[in-house]
Amino acid sequence: MRAVVFNGTPKLTKVPDPSPAAGEALVRVLSAGICNTDLEIMKGYMRFSGVLGHEFVGIVETSSNSHLQGKRVVGEINCVCHQCEYCQLEMPHHCLNRTVLGIAGRDGVFAEYVVLPEENLHLVPQSIPDDVAVFTEPAAAAYRILEQVEVSAEDRVIVLGDGKLGQLVAQVLHMQTKNLICVGKHRWKLDLLNRHHIQTAHAGEPLARGVDVVVEATGSYEGFSRALELVRPEGTVVLKTTVAHPTALDMSHPVVDEVKIVGSRCGPFRPALDALTMGTLDVKPLVTETYSLDDAETALERATADDVMKVVLHI
Amino acid sequence: MRAVVFNGTPKLTKVPDPSPAAGEALVRVLSAGICNTDLEIMKGYMRFSGVLGHEFVGIVETSSNSHLQGKRVVGEINCVCHQCEYCQLEMPHHCLNRTVLGIAGRDGVFAEYVVLPEENLHLVPQSIPDDVAVFTEPAAAAYRILEQVEVSAEDRVIVLGDGKLGQLVAQVLHMQTKNLICVGKHRWKLDLLNRHHIQTAHAGEPLARGVDVVVEATGSYEGFSRALELVRPEGTVVLKTTVAHPTALDMSHPVVDEVKIVGSRCGPFRPALDALTMGTLDVKPLVTETYSLDDAETALERATADDVMKVVLHI
Repeated sequence: MRAVVFNGTPKLTKVPDPSPAAGEALVRVLSAGICNTDLEIMKGYMRFSGVLGHEFVGIVETSSNSHLQGKRVVGEINCVCHQCEYCQLEMPHHCLNRTVLGIAGRDGVFAEYVVLPEENLHLVPQSIPDDVAVFTEPAAAAYRILEQVEVSAEDRVIVLGDGKLGQLVAQVLHMQTKNLICVGKHRWKLDLLNRHHIQTAHAGEPLARGVDVVVEATGSYEGFSRALELVRPEGTVVLKTTVAHPTALDMSHPVVDEVKIVGSRCGPFRPALDALTMGTLDVKPLVTETYSLDDAETALERATADDVMKVVLHI
Repeated sequence: MRAVVFNGTPKLTKVPDPSPAAGEALVRVLSAGICNTDLEIMKGYMRFSGVLGHEFVGIVETSSNSHLQGKRVVGEINCVCHQCEYCQLEMPHHCLNRTVLGIAGRDGVFAEYVVLPEENLHLVPQSIPDDVAVFTEPAAAAYRILEQVEVSAEDRVIVLGDGKLGQLVAQVLHMQTKNLICVGKHRWKLDLLNRHHIQTAHAGEPLARGVDVVVEATGSYEGFSRALELVRPEGTVVLKTTVAHPTALDMSHPVVDEVKIVGSRCGPFRPALDALTMGTLDVKPLVTETYSLDDAETALERATADDVMKVVLHI
C-alpha cells in the first residue's frame, strides 16, 4: 500500500499492507486530518518514526466482530495493555505500555490501510460526511476539558489560540458559557468564531484579567505565561500545548494566587461524535484544503502555513 | 515600643506604639515564630518594608469586642476589604485590596504590640502553651492542602522538604494516609518525623515514582521539577514554595500525563488550632531555639542555619 512514512522527513512510499493481530481490525482509510502534533513530530517531538497521522475515518475491511465488519468508523488513538496499574485504575489513556496511533510505537493513518484494536473503534452515523467525522479525535480532546474542569454558565473563559484546536475548544466551551473570548493572531480565523457569535480578540489587544478558566491552545510555549497573567486567583489554567521546549517560569505568582493548572490531552469520543452528528459543533469551515494521498507531502507543507486551518487527505 | 523593622536590613528599633483603627484590636505579642517567608522578605521578596513577622500569639489589650478583651489570641494574616469581587466571591484571602501582616502593607509581629482586625483573631484554648500556639498560622497553611485536594487513606503521598512547613504538611497529611514519605536533606529533621512513624527518605535516595500526590515544600525553586518526576499521570502536585525565581520548565510532560498542579497558600485556623489542642499535631520538638526580642537580629540570623528548625521570639 501507499503510506506517508516519517524517518527524518515525511515521504510517500510503498510499504507492505499491515496485518491485524488478534483483537485488531484492518481499516481502509477514507479521510485523514493533519494535526499540529503531526507537524511537531516532524520537528522531532516523541522521536517517532513510521507512518504519520492519527485523525481518520475509514471502513472496517477485516474484523472478527460482525458488528464492525464493513462499517464506517473513527478510532481512539491510545492502544492499551489492560494489565498495568493505570489500566487497572481505569486510566487507560495513561497505560504504561501503550502505543499511540502515528505518535508512539504504532503506524498511523496517512496510508491506505491501518490496524487498530477493535475496542478503539466507534461507529460513525451515516449522516456525518467523512470530512466532518475526521474531526472526532480533536473534538474529543476539546471535550476532555469538560471531564476535568467544571465550566458553568456564569464562568468567564478565555481560550488562547485560534488554530484548529482553539476553534474546537472555543465552540465546545461556548456551549457551556457565553462569557467566553477566544484570543488569536489571525483575523480570518477569529471571524470563523464570530459567525457562531463567539467573542474574539486579537492577541495584541488588552484583555480584562481575572477570568475563571483560561485554556492554553496556542501551540506555542509562550502561551502558558500569558494564561497565568489572565486567570483569577483560585482559577484554572488548562494546558493543551505539548511543545517540548523548556520555558522560564516564575511560579511564585500562581502559588500566591492558588491557581490550578491542569494538563489535558485525549478525550471522550462519544460526546464529540454526538456534537458532530447534531451539528452543534460546526467543523466544515475549518477544512481549508484537501489533497489526495499522492499529494500528501505538499499537504504536510501547506499545513504549516498561516493561511490554512485543517488540511484533510482523501485517501 | 521595640520592634524589628526591615528596610534593607532587619533592625531592632524604637517605634511609636500602633493604634488600632475601627474594627481593629491592639494585641500585646507574647511569642512570635520566624518563617521562611520572613527570610525571603529579607532577600527582597514582596519588596516589603516595615515591622517583620506574621506568626504570633498575644493578649488582646484593647478591643471594642468584650469577648476578645484580655484574651489570648492568634491571628489570620490577610486583612481584607469585604468589597472587592474576591471578597464577594468568598475568597477573602485573595482580596484585591488586602494587606498582609508583616508581608504586604501592614506592620508585623516582631514587636511588643500589633494591630489586626478583630475578625482575624481566634481565641486560643488555655491548654496550649504559647510556643505551640505560635504554630497555628503555618499549621493552617498545611491544612489548606486538605481544602484543595482530596487525600484518602489509599493515596500515596510524597512531601518534598523536611523544613518547618514540610514537617507540618507531613504530619497533617499522615493523619489522612499512612502511605506517605517525607523527603529531605537533613537526617536529624527526618528523625523527628520517624518518631511519629512517618516514613522518610534522603533527597539523594531513589524513590518509587507515580504517587498520587506530591507536595512541594522544599523552599527551593528546584523542587517543582522533582515533584513532576514523582507524580503519577492525573496525579496532583501541590506547590507551597514561593521563591521568586524564574525556572526553566518543560511543561509537555505534565500535559501528556494530565497532571494537576495546585498553588497553595494560607489555610483555615480552626482545624489547625484543634489539632494543636488535641496534640495530634506535635510541634514542640520543632522549636530548636528561643530568643528575647532584644536578640531578634541574632535570632533571624540563626533561623537561616541548617541546624535549626523553628526559631521563636519571646517578646
